[in-house]
Amino acid sequence: MLRTHTCGELRLADANKNVTLAGWVQRLRDKGSVLWIDMRDRYGITQLIFEEGKIAPVLLEAARNVGREYVIQIEGTVVERLSKNDKIPTGEVEVRVMKLEVLNASKLPPFTIEDDTDGGDELRMKYRYLDLRRNPVRQSLQLRHKMAQQTRTFLDDQHFIEVETPVLIKSTPEGARDFVVPSRVHHGEFYALPQSPQTFKQLLMVSGFDRYYQIVKCFRDEDLRADRQPEFTQIDCEMAFITQEDILNTFEGLIRHLFKNVKSIDLPTVQRMNYDDAMQQYGSDKPDTRFDMKFVEITPLTKGKNFPVFENAELVVGINAIGCAEYSRKQIDELTEFVKRPQVGAKGLVYIQYRADGSIKSSVDKFYSADELKVWIEKFSANPGDLIFLMAGEAATTRKQLSELRLFMGEKLGFRDKQKFAALWVVDFPLLEWSEDTKRYHAMHHPFTSPKPEDIKLLDTDPGKVRANAYDMVINGTEVGGGSIRIHDRATQQMMFNHLGFTQEEAKKQFGFLMEAFEFGAPPHGGIAFGFDRLCSLFGGAESIRDFIAFPKNNAGRDVMIDTPSAISDEQLKELGLIIKK
Amino acid sequence: MLRTHTCGELRLADANKNVTLAGWVQRLRDKGSVLWIDMRDRYGITQLIFEEGKIAPVLLEAARNVGREYVIQIEGTVVERLSKNDKIPTGEVEVRVMKLEVLNASKLPPFTIEDDTDGGDELRMKYRYLDLRRNPVRQSLQLRHKMAQQTRTFLDDQHFIEVETPVLIKSTPEGARDFVVPSRVHHGEFYALPQSPQTFKQLLMVSGFDRYYQIVKCFRDEDLRADRQPEFTQIDCEMAFITQEDILNTFEGLIRHLFKNVKSIDLPTVQRMNYDDAMQQYGSDKPDTRFDMKFVEITPLTKGKNFPVFENAELVVGINAIGCAEYSRKQIDELTEFVKRPQVGAKGLVYIQYRADGSIKSSVDKFYSADELKVWIEKFSANPGDLIFLMAGEAATTRKQLSELRLFMGEKLGFRDKQKFAALWVVDFPLLEWSEDTKRYHAMHHPFTSPKPEDIKLLDTDPGKVRANAYDMVINGTEVGGGSIRIHDRATQQMMFNHLGFTQEEAKKQFGFLMEAFEFGAPPHGGIAFGFDRLCSLFGGAESIRDFIAFPKNNAGRDVMIDTPSAISDEQLKELGLIIKK
Repeated sequence: MLRTHTCGELRLADANKNVTLAGWVQRLRDKGSVLWIDMRDRYGITQLIFEEGKIAPVLLEAARNVGREYVIQIEGTVVERLSKNDKIPTGEVEVRVMKLEVLNASKLPPFTIEDDTDGGDELRMKYRYLDLRRNPVRQSLQLRHKMAQQTRTFLDDQHFIEVETPVLIKSTPEGARDFVVPSRVHHGEFYALPQSPQTFKQLLMVSGFDRYYQIVKCFRDEDLRADRQPEFTQIDCEMAFITQEDILNTFEGLIRHLFKNVKSIDLPTVQRMNYDDAMQQYGSDKPDTRFDMKFVEITPLTKGKNFPVFENAELVVGINAIGCAEYSRKQIDELTEFVKRPQVGAKGLVYIQYRADGSIKSSVDKFYSADELKVWIEKFSANPGDLIFLMAGEAATTRKQLSELRLFMGEKLGFRDKQKFAALWVVDFPLLEWSEDTKRYHAMHHPFTSPKPEDIKLLDTDPGKVRANAYDMVINGTEVGGGSIRIHDRATQQMMFNHLGFTQEEAKKQFGFLMEAFEFGAPPHGGIAFGFDRLCSLFGGAESIRDFIAFPKNNAGRDVMIDTPSAISDEQLKELGLIIKK
Repeated sequence: MLRTHTCGELRLADANKNVTLAGWVQRLRDKGSVLWIDMRDRYGITQLIFEEGKIAPVLLEAARNVGREYVIQIEGTVVERLSKNDKIPTGEVEVRVMKLEVLNASKLPPFTIEDDTDGGDELRMKYRYLDLRRNPVRQSLQLRHKMAQQTRTFLDDQHFIEVETPVLIKSTPEGARDFVVPSRVHHGEFYALPQSPQTFKQLLMVSGFDRYYQIVKCFRDEDLRADRQPEFTQIDCEMAFITQEDILNTFEGLIRHLFKNVKSIDLPTVQRMNYDDAMQQYGSDKPDTRFDMKFVEITPLTKGKNFPVFENAELVVGINAIGCAEYSRKQIDELTEFVKRPQVGAKGLVYIQYRADGSIKSSVDKFYSADELKVWIEKFSANPGDLIFLMAGEAATTRKQLSELRLFMGEKLGFRDKQKFAALWVVDFPLLEWSEDTKRYHAMHHPFTSPKPEDIKLLDTDPGKVRANAYDMVINGTEVGGGSIRIHDRATQQMMFNHLGFTQEEAKKQFGFLMEAFEFGAPPHGGIAFGFDRLCSLFGGAESIRDFIAFPKNNAGRDVMIDTPSAISDEQLKELGLIIKK
């Protein structure tokens, strides 16, 4: 080793020891007769001291000549510091250097390697290897490592077997777009990269593996939105001989284990909410339950008073912003502007201020009497000092819009603390969702999800009403995982493909192997997959997943550090039997 | 859960318990009035009993109607068996069934689900999900799981951080062929799948991550040979601020940990051997050191006696097959045929039988006197009863041929027991190797390997003689891992690219980011990668890696179960801007 200790290791008890350290120059302070260097490695920072008169002038000169981010190796003696630094664990000591060797010089970095850097996003991505030197980024990746470790510890203890499934698989048109890999040996044929190991994990259940997991890279060739990556990581799991209840309990256990062992947080029991309630009470299938502010519907109460917006509305629904009655006109206008933004798309916002003195002021008091508004207020269980917001229109749209306002208000009122965590199971998802684009039903989860047995009879008459044995785990308003009990018999799977508009031939071509497998003794099974990047960023209290991925792509799917995607040689194209269309 | 216990769990102490089990029908024995079913799951086998008179006739009938590989769920009472089976842990009990439900029927499997199956390779691959039900295959994958677990445990303890590196990277022409992934967004541009995370792990060292590991999929588009897979898994590691000695010690530690914790074997200290010695003494850079049988060179002793084969040979070299003097003419002829096979390519084989009575018989006794042969025998330290084989010709070729004979003899003599393990570090590999194809030197390991400082001066004058700080771990004659100390400064890396025939521009285009990174304070670093599939198969005592991979491809790179690679839709091709050349 080029060191006897790391830069995070020395303490007062080490005083008088001769040590060798290696690391980076974080900072240099030159007071003329004394010079200090803060030396950094992954483990911490140690202060080095070079004092005139006590060391050879040539050594002082050498120290003076090192620059930021130089890699140096030093030998010296640990001594007690005169002026201690209680902010770092090594702050009681410094090393009196007797020998200094520059292991590698450094050009001036294009941005400062500090917790808060002056580097913009693009520069940081181009020099990601320098960005990764910064504490917050390194700590994010260390958190990820710990999350992976603890996930494995928990699942290993529960007798899950980690099995690697293939990366070079088969393209299927269902779902998002696949990345494909041309075969050189079989011209005109392609592998595809997996969007998930779904069919393989089901086959492992057919094989009797019983409990499978994998922390695995998946791929989606989507038009990238902010914070989406073409390659991402899942904690992918499947169990056999279980019911939905078993899955929920097992993976609630996983999440609680992670909170306990990574964040030292005792997560309370995970609430459960069915999809319909989530939509009705929060306008979202991933409600943020760190705060209450549930929706209250008052549609019938608003009718017959000639207020056209409410009169014609399928739904009039609102939230109570507790203690906000004294919001100024300006503040309310801002909220109205917020809901009118195209991203939210509402036409307007009705408010009722229930003032501390019991008086009521509302934007609709031309249409409704104080007594009428009082009835509404009671519906909201509002108290003096509260502020009610109402929105109206087509039910689903209005709920979605109000959900945005609820989240915005929650943020404003400080209810969305990133260090507080509220987890929730959303269950009983619809099996199918209607697509206006294709004018047909699509699987809401995926085509392998099993309908609730009691709802199967609705498949022909009212497909949108069929519920699935499907569930999502939501933490702080983010879907961190989802799964379902699977279909495990050929007849049901065939029926499902029919309902999804697959011809018999298409179903056979794409999933014939799975349907055939179901004929050889497939056990009841189900599973779940967690978005690992997102889960890590949530645990890290961050908005973006990017710093929880060592080498992420930018929003155009490009790695600007290595400059890829990029052209390949004509010879490669020729070997693959491909021509690029001009 | 659809069960209270697994099929491997019940013991005599559980007698009289009411239990629910679920699993597969392994076997049914129908004696008319009594019927037994062996019920199987991942954990074991439990015997079920259905006895006429003690249960409803309809239940007996139901039991009679289940077939092999049906998935059933039963409720019943644990009872002591009359005739015990001490071969399985549940052999003292059986379950008297009171309720039977068929969870899924099964067609007759295309091959028997037994330890020894009647299924051929192709059928087993097509129905891999059934093949995976067989104990030996499942146990191989469970071994793999344990290997991965123990690898992580060891490396976590040593403060390695697991970091995921990207799968969508950049194509580089050096080394084997890349699989490429066309970009839909950037027409005419491609990602490549990594042959290894080499440059990324080096960048992590530049970032100060200090100790990195990953169990990671890698990809090579090679013309497949037997037992090569287009996707394979590596244990990939890198360390900073270390010397070669530190790497050898750390990863000897890993291998010893694996043997101890997976196989309960205390591996002796791993021998070290330099490349030149390995080639001279074993004719191989991956000698099987489970047995000795070292090469002995006698070239000068053979000269001047008019035996043209030896007279004109650069090298005359042999091995001593201890105790084989009594080999018959036929046996020796077989060995001669073996070395003459095109795969070995020798012209012939000379033998000297040193018989138990002290007499000598040799195929060259026309040319050499008994006294002369006696001198050779002494060189070999042979004893009466031994049999010496000699080969001659150009040195490197002859050594390679003799190495094949040595391995063949080792096998014949039972020295290559799959449950015995001999590990070895081969060090001081040449930096470069000459390619007759391209008429230039190539990096033997890869272009990032650092030359030994004392040999750098030879780069211009005698490049083939330059040794690298490179090392392989060899177990039982198989290279299971290899690595090197890396170049960490731009000037040396640039010089290396020059020597490998890269133009400055090519080097910059392909590895500019790495060379630039070396200018911002790159620490000394090095690492290693183990072939995980091979390591698992070695631990499992198997010849082939295939059963240590859940869903392998066949020798044509095809997954015959899901039928991939396969055609993609015209729409997909259009979106990618690609045309398939007819």
